[in-house]
Amino acid sequence: MPAPEAKRQRTQPTYELLYHPSIPGRGEYIRLVLEAAGAPYSDVAKEKGDEGYARVLAACSATSTGDADGNPPAFAPPALRVPGAGRDGKALVISQTPNIVQYLAAKLGLAPADEADALHANQHMLTALDLSNEAHDSHHPIAVSLYYEDQKDAAKQRANDFRETRIPKFFSYFERTLKGNEELGQGKYLVGDKLSHADTTLWQVVDGLFFAFPKELAARKSEFPLLLEKFYAGIKEEKGLKEYLASDRRLKYSMGLYRHYPELDRE
Amino acid sequence: MPAPEAKRQRTQPTYELLYHPSIPGRGEYIRLVLEAAGAPYSDVAKEKGDEGYARVLAACSATSTGDADGNPPAFAPPALRVPGAGRDGKALVISQTPNIVQYLAAKLGLAPADEADALHANQHMLTALDLSNEAHDSHHPIAVSLYYEDQKDAAKQRANDFRETRIPKFFSYFERTLKGNEELGQGKYLVGDKLSHADTTLWQVVDGLFFAFPKELAARKSEFPLLLEKFYAGIKEEKGLKEYLASDRRLKYSMGLYRHYPELDRE
Repeated sequence: MPAPEAKRQRTQPTYELLYHPSIPGRGEYIRLVLEAAGAPYSDVAKEKGDEGYARVLAACSATSTGDADGNPPAFAPPALRVPGAGRDGKALVISQTPNIVQYLAAKLGLAPADEADALHANQHMLTALDLSNEAHDSHHPIAVSLYYEDQKDAAKQRANDFRETRIPKFFSYFERTLKGNEELGQGKYLVGDKLSHADTTLWQVVDGLFFAFPKELAARKSEFPLLLEKFYAGIKEEKGLKEYLASDRRLKYSMGLYRHYPELDRE
Repeated sequence: MPAPEAKRQRTQPTYELLYHPSIPGRGEYIRLVLEAAGAPYSDVAKEKGDEGYARVLAACSATSTGDADGNPPAFAPPALRVPGAGRDGKALVISQTPNIVQYLAAKLGLAPADEADALHANQHMLTALDLSNEAHDSHHPIAVSLYYEDQKDAAKQRANDFRETRIPKFFSYFERTLKGNEELGQGKYLVGDKLSHADTTLWQVVDGLFFAFPKELAARKSEFPLLLEKFYAGIKEEKGLKEYLASDRRLKYSMGLYRHYPELDRE
């Protein structure tokens, strides 16, 4: 008869997402992978109030040299805790959004099985996250430590360049990638013929941009038909994601990564 | 007797780095992994002049939907081409700095063997690359498409916040990580007891910051002794890296990612 530890190792762990409780933010890239895969997880700060959020803050404490299970500190949320997945059956704690997304995608069957495909999915996921960072910096070009109101003039300039130069450059890359994979992916998937973490990540970025820059994206629709119509509409219907997006687990955009300031959008 | 194809697969490929010819830039994170591992590689644009650079530009062409070997387009340099490593013995082409660094580190024995250690090395590598991006944005806070001179006032504000808030936050994270791993890593390695891609990447960021902000880093030395003294000096002496750093393959900093504008440094 196996020892209880061995048994626990063979069943799927309950993943613990350590992130802010009330914004989609960077945590959303991780939630979408978990939801698309139908994996059991706990959104610690959202579900466990102050006590839960205290655990998030402890993982990212500015004085920590690591935890009792041998994990290094996290620079910032999100982090992922996986009971039993660390050394000697201890808990594993990892951070950095692309690191977590890639790890979960591989464990949960969302990463392509072919090595080249998996590398290309990572490439697209990382590029989508670069666009996500630039979306953030469009309202905070000078300092995350300052209010938007205190960097509004610079934000107007940066958002203008973001809309006119960066959005079309990124969208062109993804439109061409969808086009190059159209035979297999039918405009719905970036790599191969099924959903990957590249798709869930890109979808969340596009959705965030629809919220933040509605006029700009409406004006761009005809320019990027695969990305903004076929892909964007298709991913919403995927098993797991459809149910999640209609549920109250899906948080509303507010004052996080994606912000709607009408003065930063196209006139 | 094996077919020539099968034979080629078993020998190490000559990696082809597709990057700009005359700046360290983001290509340097990849060069350091290759040099530390002693792997054969070709720095295509540097070695093959206009014809080589044309290959870099073709890989990132704004109209490409992918290449004849089934690889998607690259958003921007760097990209890595690996003859024989794609599907059916074709060439593999991948982009995104962290994707390439992680891939090479795993192939070349620079990634930790233990899964948790490898995930933590990726986490630190990605965090170092975030600092690298913020270093870039300190001189280009408004738009990469504009000259520094056209965003100098915003750059002064951003660089001020970068030096006073961001550098210490990142350095504290790495100092604490080195501290937490001191028993194994002796202050020289972020993960375990040997060199990984986390170390080569962080070292390059710190070296770039020593070039860009010499006064700021001099003033911070006593605050982060493991990072700025033990780690920084130790990595320079590693096999492969020591020879590389003394060679003419190591490019000088100029007008790339890391720039020295005295007016952005501490006064």
